[in-house]
Amino acid sequence: MASNKTKRPEITNSQRPESKTVDVYDEYNQVKSFQITGELPLTIYLNKKEVVTLMTLGHYPESLVIGYLRNQGFVSKLSDIESVQVDWDTNSAAVKSISNLDEFENKLTHRVVTSGCGQGTTFGGIWDDLKDKNLQTTKLRQSSIYKILKLLHDKNEIYRKSGAVHGCAICDENNIIDFIEDVGRHNAVDAIAGNMWLNNIESTNKIFYTTGRLTSEMVIKVAQMNISYLISRSGITEMGLNVAKETGVTLIGRAKGRHFLVYNGHQNIIYDKKPEPRPEGSSDIWKRR
Amino acid sequence: MASNKTKRPEITNSQRPESKTVDVYDEYNQVKSFQITGELPLTIYLNKKEVVTLMTLGHYPESLVIGYLRNQGFVSKLSDIESVQVDWDTNSAAVKSISNLDEFENKLTHRVVTSGCGQGTTFGGIWDDLKDKNLQTTKLRQSSIYKILKLLHDKNEIYRKSGAVHGCAICDENNIIDFIEDVGRHNAVDAIAGNMWLNNIESTNKIFYTTGRLTSEMVIKVAQMNISYLISRSGITEMGLNVAKETGVTLIGRAKGRHFLVYNGHQNIIYDKKPEPRPEGSSDIWKRR
Repeated sequence: MASNKTKRPEITNSQRPESKTVDVYDEYNQVKSFQITGELPLTIYLNKKEVVTLMTLGHYPESLVIGYLRNQGFVSKLSDIESVQVDWDTNSAAVKSISNLDEFENKLTHRVVTSGCGQGTTFGGIWDDLKDKNLQTTKLRQSSIYKILKLLHDKNEIYRKSGAVHGCAICDENNIIDFIEDVGRHNAVDAIAGNMWLNNIESTNKIFYTTGRLTSEMVIKVAQMNISYLISRSGITEMGLNVAKETGVTLIGRAKGRHFLVYNGHQNIIYDKKPEPRPEGSSDIWKRR
Repeated sequence: MASNKTKRPEITNSQRPESKTVDVYDEYNQVKSFQITGELPLTIYLNKKEVVTLMTLGHYPESLVIGYLRNQGFVSKLSDIESVQVDWDTNSAAVKSISNLDEFENKLTHRVVTSGCGQGTTFGGIWDDLKDKNLQTTKLRQSSIYKILKLLHDKNEIYRKSGAVHGCAICDENNIIDFIEDVGRHNAVDAIAGNMWLNNIESTNKIFYTTGRLTSEMVIKVAQMNISYLISRSGITEMGLNVAKETGVTLIGRAKGRHFLVYNGHQNIIYDKKPEPRPEGSSDIWKRR
């Protein structure tokens, strides 16, 4: 049996240019030195054909490119990719792939601009590939949800200072396996998808977390990655819920501290750690939100 | 002289389908009835050719479509558009236009997926059109910034309950002229651009406000609309700042209450209402953020 190692593509491990410190003026007309969030264009060329330009923080460009091509359905397995060369002098990523180019051209002709915060573009045919999906899963304990939220809260404490970014994480019931931030959360989820391939992380019994809203795009990406659980501290949209119902993704929104709402897949949750009952006469937090 | 009225396109005034109420389960395993944010696909056909599918709340679909085509550079004036027919049965918007189709085809071949929260897609050539732009403006008083922020705060109070949306506004020094929310703020800004054309709102001495971050996409759109001031309660990105410097947009971020930071165009602000000096020894709010 061939080892997995021989199938790993050749990739650069590029360092993005340092982000800048700029002078800003506050409400007292006083100048301050401020670090701003990086945002760089990265144009992906697949077999020398331009696919798209992503605007990115650029922390994990090779993973981002691989995950983008994976989640857009351009490549179906890591061994389809021969090499990824990221060059920040030209802001380009050159990908060599053994993908079928006929289908590739066809995909480029239909674009959907997906919605919301952290929105991106999907190419044609993705939904057709997803319709038959029916994700199976083991049940998830409420106590595990709380454990993950605690870990993520601590992690966010570290990253909070950078600001102006969205975070995504892939977790199991006990650990954060990978945590990535980018200027768009669609990039963060793609970079995680790339890392999962590069590091042989299985999707079985994994939980995906995002700081952003559960729009259709996020649910589609998670379903494509065969991940059964999607947790967010934000709310959902109608289309996000519809995609979850079609594909079987268990959707947990507005998750923070001890609170959460299960929008889809309620039967997959084991309520083993219900909080103390609300005191008589106290207001319902969901009504206050 | 022909009146402006004869040049206004024929448009539908479609009502989007009602948004849904769904059952969700909270952390006590109790069912609750919850209204969720609408998110509908709307495919734009320009002269029967598919341009893009936008995911939208759908509150102002005709304005959104017109503003999208305007901001993407497909049409250069309202009179280029003959009609916009939105049909929610087929989730489509059929646009008839007198645009030059050769250039149109060319634009469709280059796409940039812009970054961040409220990110979208731009088509080729937009940056080329912007490079020569050098926005001229009268100065903006600090007291006017505070006035607008107060008006927007009151407005947001009303809209806050809907959740999971981004808001954008076009203002002058004394009033909110238009305020639109959508699942992506790129849609909200496009819908405002459409409304500005449809209602003959001049861009001179106007101020654009967004709840979201000042990424390159937002600054590009505002520069395209010939608006000199862009205010946000969030931060900026490196590329957003670069675009502002190139085009002359005055960029005011992290604006909330009495606080704001001027990232570009500091010389255009009249500091006529500086807050009371910070008490001796008090911490700097910007260091705490």
